[in-house]
Amino acid sequence: MSVYLIDSPVDDSHVRLRADVPDIISISVDDLLSIPAEHLVIADVSIYLAHRWPQPTIVLAHNHQGYELVNAWQRGAWAGWIRDQLPDSLAPIIQQLKMQHQHQSDSRDLPAAARLQKRLIPRPLDIPNYQIEHIYQPASALSGDWLDYWMTPDNRLLFYLADVAGHGAASSLLTGWLAAFHGSEHSPQALLSRMNRLLVTQNAGKHITVLCGLLNPVTHHLEWCSAGHYPPPILIHPDRTTEILNSSSFPLGLVTDLTLTTQTTSLEPKSQLLFCSDGAIEIFTGGTSEQLTQLIETLSSRRFDPPDHLTDDLTILSLSRI
Amino acid sequence: MSVYLIDSPVDDSHVRLRADVPDIISISVDDLLSIPAEHLVIADVSIYLAHRWPQPTIVLAHNHQGYELVNAWQRGAWAGWIRDQLPDSLAPIIQQLKMQHQHQSDSRDLPAAARLQKRLIPRPLDIPNYQIEHIYQPASALSGDWLDYWMTPDNRLLFYLADVAGHGAASSLLTGWLAAFHGSEHSPQALLSRMNRLLVTQNAGKHITVLCGLLNPVTHHLEWCSAGHYPPPILIHPDRTTEILNSSSFPLGLVTDLTLTTQTTSLEPKSQLLFCSDGAIEIFTGGTSEQLTQLIETLSSRRFDPPDHLTDDLTILSLSRI
Repeated sequence: MSVYLIDSPVDDSHVRLRADVPDIISISVDDLLSIPAEHLVIADVSIYLAHRWPQPTIVLAHNHQGYELVNAWQRGAWAGWIRDQLPDSLAPIIQQLKMQHQHQSDSRDLPAAARLQKRLIPRPLDIPNYQIEHIYQPASALSGDWLDYWMTPDNRLLFYLADVAGHGAASSLLTGWLAAFHGSEHSPQALLSRMNRLLVTQNAGKHITVLCGLLNPVTHHLEWCSAGHYPPPILIHPDRTTEILNSSSFPLGLVTDLTLTTQTTSLEPKSQLLFCSDGAIEIFTGGTSEQLTQLIETLSSRRFDPPDHLTDDLTILSLSRI
Repeated sequence: MSVYLIDSPVDDSHVRLRADVPDIISISVDDLLSIPAEHLVIADVSIYLAHRWPQPTIVLAHNHQGYELVNAWQRGAWAGWIRDQLPDSLAPIIQQLKMQHQHQSDSRDLPAAARLQKRLIPRPLDIPNYQIEHIYQPASALSGDWLDYWMTPDNRLLFYLADVAGHGAASSLLTGWLAAFHGSEHSPQALLSRMNRLLVTQNAGKHITVLCGLLNPVTHHLEWCSAGHYPPPILIHPDRTTEILNSSSFPLGLVTDLTLTTQTTSLEPKSQLLFCSDGAIEIFTGGTSEQLTQLIETLSSRRFDPPDHLTDDLTILSLSRI
């Protein structure tokens, strides 16, 4: 990254001559077009405000130019220097701005990453007598929650919801990891055991909680298990009464030999099974058990509408028998 | 997000009374400690400089306080307003700062994501007569390149280098995806075919180029194939002459039925096989073929030292027979 000083009617050669920034290059504002966007520019605040350029910029001003300074600030300049009160050392500030620039360009493709993440979630399946739906709402750009489902070769529906410890970009890396298991196994036990073995082998330092189910859409028989996940599955009966399906083992990634307990039940007509991430209870107030009660109450009365601002990723996977 | 106005000797009640920001709350600077870090603070520039607080802040100043303004700016204040020249409308600026705040907190865990990504790369394997090494240097926080290797059940080394189209967070999501194939297959054909089928099924909209090899460390027989990857594998012979191993098919993710051509060779004592991502040639000048020539020349004379500043992710996987 080079540093360019824009020629101006005010003589700023003393900036260029500062010993600790040896390579400041003088340039006219018209020649800026030919300079790559990652280089640093130092320019008089009035010239900056009269033009637009993409390079990160430090503006030079006099003490009484407060209004110009705040405008340059709002327009995206990176720092300001007062001409007769230049910082003792320019190099550390330039170094800090370079790091800030790197940081900003790192975050620039988070929206693209978020689109790709949503794209990896499977599209709705057409299953006779059943409807599978989901809500997938990250607290920030990227989610640490995941969900997936597919039909097994013997025409059963395998579906799961997972919550990677933490949130944001680090956890989302493991949602990409989870997406690679799509279609690979045909039972909750086999899927979760394989995920667990690999997670322990790779020593990722993050555990994952999972709720996983297997439905036979002809007999309506359901088997399911939980790997350390909270909240538990919620079953809404046809009369809108609710049932919490309790069962648990360790989360994935903690122990080499994971013992999973499979539970079974049957889905009646007009019943609904819900898997939720803990972000779904955190939108309610009170202790954990009060939060769960409110979530169940909300889901069973069909008024669930997640708020815009979340403190944790929120994901709900719903399977309804018609 | 609420907006707090810090009490100051200067009467700033006209800010609080602006009609388009209805809910500005007056507060003393000492009470700021009890306010969550995501709320917005408006404060006199001198008070801001005399204290430190974590909340995003707009400073109020007079036009002649340029020096205080640039200091507040450098200290991390988010914007400045001149008291007698307040913007016509405060609400859009506050809205913009809120979005900027969200964007900044999104990018805050990129370093943690980068550490996790590096952690998923396997540690060096102890293979008699062979040494496996790598360079893995992202252009930004996260890399769109990947590499992996493992011993198959019949004691052969399966190893590959992959380059996901694009770079940064979006591409890194698919490096997490790739990491989940660790140990899953025992031949280049089987591995790349399975990756390709899933990538096409999931319709991720990103292709992946791969170089994949399988070494028998007893017979020194090597088979390898390329899925649309450039540069090709480079073989350095014991006398330091070099050979480009040409072969290619489509990248992963483009066609349902991927036909891969497997090539074979044998590794002599003191020979070295190198898989490189295209970031390794982009550090050289000239056209693609000049760049490749310079890379090979550099690698064969053992002076390879990647520069600090990269425009593309750089990854090299090296397998040397001792």
